[in-house]
Amino acid sequence: MLTRRTLLKTTAAGAALGALASSQTAGGAPAAPALQRVEPPNWWVGMAEPRLQLMLHGPGLATLEARLKAPGVRLLGQQRLASPNYLFIELELAADCRPGHIEIQLHRPGSAAPLLSLPYELLARAPGSAQRQGFDTKDAIYLVVPDRFARAEPAVAPPAMRETRVDRSDPGARHGGNLAGLRARLDYIAAMGFTQIWPTPLVENDGPSYSYHGYAATDFYRIDPRFGSNEEFRALAAEARQRGLGLIQDIVLNHIGDHHWWMADLPAPDWLNQWPSYTETHHARVTWQDPHAAPSDRRRFSDGWFTPGMPDLNQRQPQLATYLIQMSLWWIEYAGLSGVRTDTYSYSDRDFLARWSARLMREYPRLNIVGEEWSGHPAIVAYWQRGKRNHDGYVSSTPSMMDFPLHYALLAGLKDADQGEGGIYKLYETLAHDFVYADANRLVVFEGNHDTPRLFSLLGEDMDLLRMAWSYLCVVNRIPQFFYGSEVLLTSPQQRDDGRVRADFPGGFAGDTVDGFSGRGLSPRQGEAKDLLRRLLNWRKGAKAVHNGHLIHYAPLHGIYVLFRRLPGERPVMLVINKNRRSMSLDLQRFADTLNEARLGRDVLSGHVHPLHASLELPSRSTMVLELSP
Amino acid sequence: MLTRRTLLKTTAAGAALGALASSQTAGGAPAAPALQRVEPPNWWVGMAEPRLQLMLHGPGLATLEARLKAPGVRLLGQQRLASPNYLFIELELAADCRPGHIEIQLHRPGSAAPLLSLPYELLARAPGSAQRQGFDTKDAIYLVVPDRFARAEPAVAPPAMRETRVDRSDPGARHGGNLAGLRARLDYIAAMGFTQIWPTPLVENDGPSYSYHGYAATDFYRIDPRFGSNEEFRALAAEARQRGLGLIQDIVLNHIGDHHWWMADLPAPDWLNQWPSYTETHHARVTWQDPHAAPSDRRRFSDGWFTPGMPDLNQRQPQLATYLIQMSLWWIEYAGLSGVRTDTYSYSDRDFLARWSARLMREYPRLNIVGEEWSGHPAIVAYWQRGKRNHDGYVSSTPSMMDFPLHYALLAGLKDADQGEGGIYKLYETLAHDFVYADANRLVVFEGNHDTPRLFSLLGEDMDLLRMAWSYLCVVNRIPQFFYGSEVLLTSPQQRDDGRVRADFPGGFAGDTVDGFSGRGLSPRQGEAKDLLRRLLNWRKGAKAVHNGHLIHYAPLHGIYVLFRRLPGERPVMLVINKNRRSMSLDLQRFADTLNEARLGRDVLSGHVHPLHASLELPSRSTMVLELSP
Repeated sequence: MLTRRTLLKTTAAGAALGALASSQTAGGAPAAPALQRVEPPNWWVGMAEPRLQLMLHGPGLATLEARLKAPGVRLLGQQRLASPNYLFIELELAADCRPGHIEIQLHRPGSAAPLLSLPYELLARAPGSAQRQGFDTKDAIYLVVPDRFARAEPAVAPPAMRETRVDRSDPGARHGGNLAGLRARLDYIAAMGFTQIWPTPLVENDGPSYSYHGYAATDFYRIDPRFGSNEEFRALAAEARQRGLGLIQDIVLNHIGDHHWWMADLPAPDWLNQWPSYTETHHARVTWQDPHAAPSDRRRFSDGWFTPGMPDLNQRQPQLATYLIQMSLWWIEYAGLSGVRTDTYSYSDRDFLARWSARLMREYPRLNIVGEEWSGHPAIVAYWQRGKRNHDGYVSSTPSMMDFPLHYALLAGLKDADQGEGGIYKLYETLAHDFVYADANRLVVFEGNHDTPRLFSLLGEDMDLLRMAWSYLCVVNRIPQFFYGSEVLLTSPQQRDDGRVRADFPGGFAGDTVDGFSGRGLSPRQGEAKDLLRRLLNWRKGAKAVHNGHLIHYAPLHGIYVLFRRLPGERPVMLVINKNRRSMSLDLQRFADTLNEARLGRDVLSGHVHPLHASLELPSRSTMVLELSP
Repeated sequence: MLTRRTLLKTTAAGAALGALASSQTAGGAPAAPALQRVEPPNWWVGMAEPRLQLMLHGPGLATLEARLKAPGVRLLGQQRLASPNYLFIELELAADCRPGHIEIQLHRPGSAAPLLSLPYELLARAPGSAQRQGFDTKDAIYLVVPDRFARAEPAVAPPAMRETRVDRSDPGARHGGNLAGLRARLDYIAAMGFTQIWPTPLVENDGPSYSYHGYAATDFYRIDPRFGSNEEFRALAAEARQRGLGLIQDIVLNHIGDHHWWMADLPAPDWLNQWPSYTETHHARVTWQDPHAAPSDRRRFSDGWFTPGMPDLNQRQPQLATYLIQMSLWWIEYAGLSGVRTDTYSYSDRDFLARWSARLMREYPRLNIVGEEWSGHPAIVAYWQRGKRNHDGYVSSTPSMMDFPLHYALLAGLKDADQGEGGIYKLYETLAHDFVYADANRLVVFEGNHDTPRLFSLLGEDMDLLRMAWSYLCVVNRIPQFFYGSEVLLTSPQQRDDGRVRADFPGGFAGDTVDGFSGRGLSPRQGEAKDLLRRLLNWRKGAKAVHNGHLIHYAPLHGIYVLFRRLPGERPVMLVINKNRRSMSLDLQRFADTLNEARLGRDVLSGHVHPLHASLELPSRSTMVLELSP
């Protein structure tokens, strides 16, 4: 990537661009046109889509005309919107276009000599980039909130920004975690058995408060300097990859922060969803699917704002749509990502999401994208997944969705009493709804995330239930996702409380007396939990029957739930959950059609081998994960 | 229909059939072959399907051979099963076959002279029978439990049966209601505004206890004599039709009562679903849809028994499958039904249900069938509806299903607090799931039925909530179904308690001091409720926008839910529910895209006309059903 400064150079006709770049319209007199930003800051040759849109920003740029000096690149068009300070240039890269700099010249109308000249870099793609394998069913994802995970002293001190205060005693303030800290913990993450890292957004959030969470971007192309630099982010991805860890970027398409640089100079009024007066989304996600939704109600869901501090992007605006698509591709290619997590998925324009996901999957056919659709209803989540034949013909290309229905069912299944269709039956019944999805195996099921109370707290700090939950997540036909700190039993209030859910990982910060990474100072129970998850995840890495096997389960009876995974040529896996507060004898006859010739079950955690004769003795509140053999 | 006795006549070769018909295998010596039953007892010419299976039952019948003396009818085959006492005869009726008697002769093998001769009647169908219009969106259904609804002294005293005791003080005993009582109340039912009657099953239930409910048939072709006769049932249908009331028969395909006459002499062991030891269904309905269900678990759901007293039919047995199909057709044709309600729908064999529903709809293309799938999940219910494109290719022909999901959502919507996605939002969100169904308008939504606690009790005996519920049921895009006695506020325990839910309709029995039919002795609140429902239903009869209009609704905000029905050329209908315990001012601007030019809203109950300017004032806990006009 080029830094912004190196993008600009003096031309014969122009003034010193270094100076121009920082000039502003002063008083009433228009300043001389100048170039302050070009986005994307570079591009690559050899992408599937030959077209490329550049957004040029700087005072008066809309008064200029672009011309091109670039072999293999054609200027398709240039667009000007309401603001005089943007010029959008549409290029077409020929199939044989070679890496290197091209030159874009900006002229005053009719002038032969360029006023400004922009060298723009077209890079070669990394080998195998297009065919990279995205995260998939063999993976387990570790979600971290970088501000709260770990800090190491950065090589370069960050510049002053709107929120500079670091106060670890304030749940809503920055706590100081950074990329350097995360990079230093990659060995830990890999050793725990995770194979993917999803950090909450790292792009610049230069707002005056609550900037730590990252969901209010102020610059889509810049890692927040308090976390580190773009280069450090790329280094993180490379170092992670060396350890078998993929990196998933959290991208927000729906909104920006109200301190985004666009807000001082919107390209066009319709760059945002505008309302006569402030109008909030009603969060009724079903409006997209609902055949009864009034058009205005659908619009209110999608175009209404989250908060006054999060201006809502109008992805129907063509230049913005292209900008967001290219921005997503840029990070994938630049950093070598294994996938994208899309925040507030359905709140963006539906047709845009179809285009966006199709383009990403066209460029990276084996990539993965996981969308956040915060709904407990399988039919709503299923709507957004690639391959779903929808009632209204809607076609998505997003391979994965977050499985909120199964997340909620897991909680209810473990917490609630086993009466009627409640308790563990609810979990069974929700999984049985897999027929609603085009590809349920591709869903990401999570124990918790940055928006939900901590699992351990929701389970009443009950280790037996936690073991059931984690074992289930590691055996069920999903991509499991865990939340940083769960392994050392971080707790939270039972009601949503973002700042406290996103508590600091012990040992991540200088002066911490407990170190969850090394284990120093952990309570026996914390140590037990960490060991449990580590063993489960490391076992899961090689458990092909769990990655790709057929799932078979049986309706829970008497508080016992039994589930199998089977893959030809692999040892079948059997999960048995006994919710009863007493030992139970499980009659195995019922499972004969799945057990087949299996006579022994090796507990993957304890190594103990159980004979599988007439019955299996289950201790009170126990979980067994067994690998079966004849 | 022919009575059984007239079916039998003496032949030259046979003994007096009247005597033979009641002979049994005595001691060790086989009795002479005799004919005791022929089912169906008659058939009709001009059905779409030319084939007809006759089940002949009587001692030693399997030793005989059938021959036919019947112009236009061909003998396709005859089957014998394990029991020596059944002969199944397969006939084919030619397209030009004419009504009248045919003669079926039963011979000893090799004997030229028939031992028995059976005259069998082929009737002409009633004009328009095949094209009869089944119940549909213009209808409102009244569910009655005949034993508990009304009694009139029968023309003929019923014979002695296993349960003869009538004890109105015992919730589980017979209370004495009958067809004569129901026939006497048809004017009442019609005047209330209902257009369809669904009585719980009326066929013979000659068990020793709990025989009143009717779901344990002992003879599929006979109305229970304690209710009346087949002829009376047919008369009921005819008299109802004269009053604009259709009759829906409740048919149980899944099981019989353990005193069914088959149980003394099963045609074959696989006539029932047999298990090594008594095995109950686990009620996990999702096994049919679940891609993860073990085959044995699916079988346990479908083939497991309800109770030891309800032998589970194996509809994979070919003769039984045909028997059940013909039995259903027989009642439709015989009584002139407007539809069928199918009990415990998914518990029957899935492929059989496809055949059964396809055959019914082939014979009566405009008939309606409503299946009972007791699941709160739209995707599960949707699976069984005609037109649904299922993940596994399953094709049903059943046009309607009971809408348990919306029933539960209505209760939760009204009872629960309006927080987050609970309360009225839940109702909205469930209706938004209509996209899951092939035809949501065809679903039957119910306030309650014979298996659920009384609506009024579930709503805490709150008249405001009751008004919301009934108004919703009358406006939403469904076929609404009400339970007898709701209109006079019958109550029940909040937990399931069948006998008490099925309480006697006041005034239905001699000596009742309160008469809900005439209104004598009703409390003011009861009178108010009855009046409310009567007015709603009678208004609904003519409200074409409600029958066939497009539904538009808006995400509930601040405890207010607004829903419209619109049909070109008809006045739009607007339903407004204000759950708040205070008056609210509803800003109408939000609904401008649906209100269009409407300026006035006439309350269909009070007649009051509301101007629809900027806002609408809603009293505390109020419901408005408005017909809109410019």
